[in-house]
Amino acid sequence: MADLQAIVDEIHEKLTPRLGEGKVADYIPQLAHVDPKRFGMAIIDVEGRVFKAGDADVPFSIQSISKVFTLTLALGKHGETTWNRVGREPSGSAFNSIVQLEHEEGKPRNPFINAGAIAVSDLVLAGHTPREAIGEIVRFVRYLADDETIAIDPDVAKSEQATGYRNFALANFMRSFNKLTHPVEHVLGVYFHHCALAMTCTQLAKSGLFLAASGRNPLTGHTVVSKQRARRINALMLTCGHYDGSGDFAYRVGLPGKSGVGGGILAVAPGRASVAVWSPGLNHNGNSLIGSLALEMLATRTGWSVFGH
Amino acid sequence: MADLQAIVDEIHEKLTPRLGEGKVADYIPQLAHVDPKRFGMAIIDVEGRVFKAGDADVPFSIQSISKVFTLTLALGKHGETTWNRVGREPSGSAFNSIVQLEHEEGKPRNPFINAGAIAVSDLVLAGHTPREAIGEIVRFVRYLADDETIAIDPDVAKSEQATGYRNFALANFMRSFNKLTHPVEHVLGVYFHHCALAMTCTQLAKSGLFLAASGRNPLTGHTVVSKQRARRINALMLTCGHYDGSGDFAYRVGLPGKSGVGGGILAVAPGRASVAVWSPGLNHNGNSLIGSLALEMLATRTGWSVFGH
Amino acid sequence: MADLQAIVDEIHEKLTPRLGEGKVADYIPQLAHVDPKRFGMAIIDVEGRVFKAGDADVPFSIQSISKVFTLTLALGKHGETTWNRVGREPSGSAFNSIVQLEHEEGKPRNPFINAGAIAVSDLVLAGHTPREAIGEIVRFVRYLADDETIAIDPDVAKSEQATGYRNFALANFMRSFNKLTHPVEHVLGVYFHHCALAMTCTQLAKSGLFLAASGRNPLTGHTVVSKQRARRINALMLTCGHYDGSGDFAYRVGLPGKSGVGGGILAVAPGRASVAVWSPGLNHNGNSLIGSLALEMLATRTGWSVFGH
Amino acid sequence: MADLQAIVDEIHEKLTPRLGEGKVADYIPQLAHVDPKRFGMAIIDVEGRVFKAGDADVPFSIQSISKVFTLTLALGKHGETTWNRVGREPSGSAFNSIVQLEHEEGKPRNPFINAGAIAVSDLVLAGHTPREAIGEIVRFVRYLADDETIAIDPDVAKSEQATGYRNFALANFMRSFNKLTHPVEHVLGVYFHHCALAMTCTQLAKSGLFLAASGRNPLTGHTVVSKQRARRINALMLTCGHYDGSGDFAYRVGLPGKSGVGGGILAVAPGRASVAVWSPGLNHNGNSLIGSLALEMLATRTGWSVFGH
Repeated sequence: MADLQAIVDEIHEKLTPRLGEGKVADYIPQLAHVDPKRFGMAIIDVEGRVFKAGDADVPFSIQSISKVFTLTLALGKHGETTWNRVGREPSGSAFNSIVQLEHEEGKPRNPFINAGAIAVSDLVLAGHTPREAIGEIVRFVRYLADDETIAIDPDVAKSEQATGYRNFALANFMRSFNKLTHPVEHVLGVYFHHCALAMTCTQLAKSGLFLAASGRNPLTGHTVVSKQRARRINALMLTCGHYDGSGDFAYRVGLPGKSGVGGGILAVAPGRASVAVWSPGLNHNGNSLIGSLALEMLATRTGWSVFGH
Repeated sequence: MADLQAIVDEIHEKLTPRLGEGKVADYIPQLAHVDPKRFGMAIIDVEGRVFKAGDADVPFSIQSISKVFTLTLALGKHGETTWNRVGREPSGSAFNSIVQLEHEEGKPRNPFINAGAIAVSDLVLAGHTPREAIGEIVRFVRYLADDETIAIDPDVAKSEQATGYRNFALANFMRSFNKLTHPVEHVLGVYFHHCALAMTCTQLAKSGLFLAASGRNPLTGHTVVSKQRARRINALMLTCGHYDGSGDFAYRVGLPGKSGVGGGILAVAPGRASVAVWSPGLNHNGNSLIGSLALEMLATRTGWSVFGH
Repeated sequence: MADLQAIVDEIHEKLTPRLGEGKVADYIPQLAHVDPKRFGMAIIDVEGRVFKAGDADVPFSIQSISKVFTLTLALGKHGETTWNRVGREPSGSAFNSIVQLEHEEGKPRNPFINAGAIAVSDLVLAGHTPREAIGEIVRFVRYLADDETIAIDPDVAKSEQATGYRNFALANFMRSFNKLTHPVEHVLGVYFHHCALAMTCTQLAKSGLFLAASGRNPLTGHTVVSKQRARRINALMLTCGHYDGSGDFAYRVGLPGKSGVGGGILAVAPGRASVAVWSPGLNHNGNSLIGSLALEMLATRTGWSVFGH
Repeated sequence: MADLQAIVDEIHEKLTPRLGEGKVADYIPQLAHVDPKRFGMAIIDVEGRVFKAGDADVPFSIQSISKVFTLTLALGKHGETTWNRVGREPSGSAFNSIVQLEHEEGKPRNPFINAGAIAVSDLVLAGHTPREAIGEIVRFVRYLADDETIAIDPDVAKSEQATGYRNFALANFMRSFNKLTHPVEHVLGVYFHHCALAMTCTQLAKSGLFLAASGRNPLTGHTVVSKQRARRINALMLTCGHYDGSGDFAYRVGLPGKSGVGGGILAVAPGRASVAVWSPGLNHNGNSLIGSLALEMLATRTGWSVFGH
């Protein structure tokens, strides 16, 4: 499919003059020091073909994109009871807001805002030490991507831990409502580590391919989740995957996606392909500015919107 | 397609014992007096075939479903500048909440909550008297459904007007931020009238068919909107169409949809069909309880989720 | 008491260079066109002596200060059942916020924010037409001040009515919770008219004298309310009389007081005197900037704080 | 003044049948196990006379009443710059709400809600280790009460620390806005310890006497604060001392006061007396139910309201 490579190249070329727009996350030095002009993109279609551009093989901090993988793990362990602990509704607030937690007695709105992902970390911890839980998450992502080189950046994890006051606030707040079952430090240990996973666009696109292919990774033949669960995770990504910019992303791109403050976005075109894009500058909702544009261009060129051709 | 008729019949049969569940809207007598055991369903596929069950040809008050049609009209008149007046993000609140309006200085979160639809009514009024604007809306819906018998129920409109204090509050509040350009009474006149449209499931499914067919009604051959606009309206329905139950509807049904407090839901399966269902009992988010179940069953049986097969 | 006159004169002199600071209310032309350099002050002690400075005999729009008088009337008619309809707690929000109304199902936090005063107007209306209720309020204020010349400025009332969208929003919102018993237009008719009372500092100080003198106006000998009720109204003025600046006013001045957006403040020194001050420029909480300073200087000079000598 | 003793005895007698009403705080065992029928009251007038009833000499956990003493200390160290770190307005929310912190970027509304007292603990820590700061607070309270036996209950401090998730949430939240200058654990160490002070009604009344006597403790002759500062602390107690029941306390009692979740209340009658009351059952705002009634009866009998005679 020469077309798709041409499209990726065109997107890269068209966006190159704009690289550097947006605001790079600076709350920890490991993110602040990333070159703001980085741009990578990788598409893997359901037949296993790979299309890349730019820094597609440079690892970056996937941050909140990891929440897709921990949710998948938690659903595997706890099934639909997961939803007793976290909701499924868009939040209508910033990614780290604490206001709604108070109105809903410590139950987060969805698994992709920080509070919700912390609740999911608590679920993943069940029966494990933090070290074991972190190990399980890393192994799961390696299995998804079929790549044993994927690892956590320990400096990022350490910095998050040292400065993550807002997340400590969220976790303690939930704990005050008896909405966490493990010690706050353990839960956040897991959370900070999975957010510190470093991956390339290519690895990320591989990891998300099961969501584009009815729950089965066509590269490895592994069935990761059922068809229904794949659809449902996609639904959550579409409604909640971009914080308070989720509606806008659905409007402009029309694909399920999950962003991270490191500038990455994983998007899923069901039945077609998994796409990862990376560009560090963020828009005012905390999503990659150039990455969102790249996906909008891709959706326009390919007609891959889930909302019609 | 005998299959689809069989599926509709099965859904009807399976849900019949549960008819009457939920709470019928009772804020005006015209809604309160509807038989809670009514159930209708109509599917029209993009090739024009119709599949029906139950009270599919009994008219009911479409209420907020009309917001899809007024938004389509406003976009036709004002294009993307519509979004200067109303946002595109899920609200994270009840359909008639006023709280977010205060935080966002009178700009509603999206066109499908009451405040947002009131802003859209203001846009539809541009250059018109209220009577003309109402006439234009009725003509537009008749054109969409290719059915000149569709009309507003004047008693419903009158009752809404007489008791709609919350909507008067919302409109005056927006007016206080200079976010309405016409007199509050005029804007609400338009709003209350379009919410009072009475339609059958069959008519409603016809009216929404353009959204399933890339903007063109295959029954009439009329191009209503561009492909891109059809996709975008679907995206808005998916993220915002069921108030604070939008995430849950996306998770369970996986189709763009818009509900009304009269118990109707219009759902769109892009590339496949338009579906209307009606059952008056509502769940705690104000969406048809049995109607949502019917659509969930339909999505499961047909695999029509936009999120994968 | 030559001292008190000297103090008033000194305050006037010291503040003269600062006249014009703050922002004059401009939401209606009648307020916007007031000379921002006006300053009036009148003190009447419990022995009936009067001390004045500046424009103490120039009438101005007392606006929200009238809420003290309507509350007094409502308590006279309905006694402690008044508190079934309105709370007694500081609001922690702006004077016209609608957010708390939603959280508390349409029951306003206190009688001195707009929503609360609208509820009080509804109580004053009981058994009356709007015209009668307005007449009763005017007669009551004339009786308090022993001055038959006090009147409503009809242009102010008309302008408020024409532009008071926020108040229409508040009233309709309360009505939607069944928290008003009369038609919104009637209740707001009363509200807009009592806010449009025009009074001089001298008249205002006279009207408030009963609050300084255990419920009895020593000038006329009329017992207006019981000792207990006078104390309680003072308590409400202290905790809620300056919107979201009430705590600051208590801290700096230490006297019960009620401000109005026209730049007036009525303050009460229990057992000593009633004080009215007027200067149109407002601080960011909507209270007279120079008026607050004048009262702070007065409290410092006289040691009249209720919180100790 | 035999009268005052008779009044205290009468209050005790009249309230005895109601002892046990309300809900004893049960979030830590040390509070949960207190006998709900305890009742103590102590009045010390500005001439040093003491009037007691019931368990006036039984120590209890003063909890949030300690916030008056830490605020006094912080003002002594930092003067009016204290208000750069904490506001002076009633909160309109529960004592441990986190919502307003988000809207005001981590600056607490006043020093008597939990968040505000945590900010004050941070100020008291300046230049100290936590141990030193705690020592300074204990010495200060002993100095105020002229009683070297006053001490912290270490079990209470330990329990608070082990279960105080909400306070950890508040402190981390403030830290995330750079509104604390010391480590969260240090600040909360100080906070939990001063809340764990155990005192009798008699000791508490002595400690607060300087607030009734223009800043000077007439028992010891020590000038603790200036007259102005005593007035200002009283003003804060009146507007903010009873959480979201402050307005009601002002209305019914009319005296500055500060309550604690252990069931104690310290009230100040400026120029007259300091009063401490203790009864463990709490009302829905978290203030002593019987204690509030006792103070209301006292105010009625004595006419000590600051709002008039």
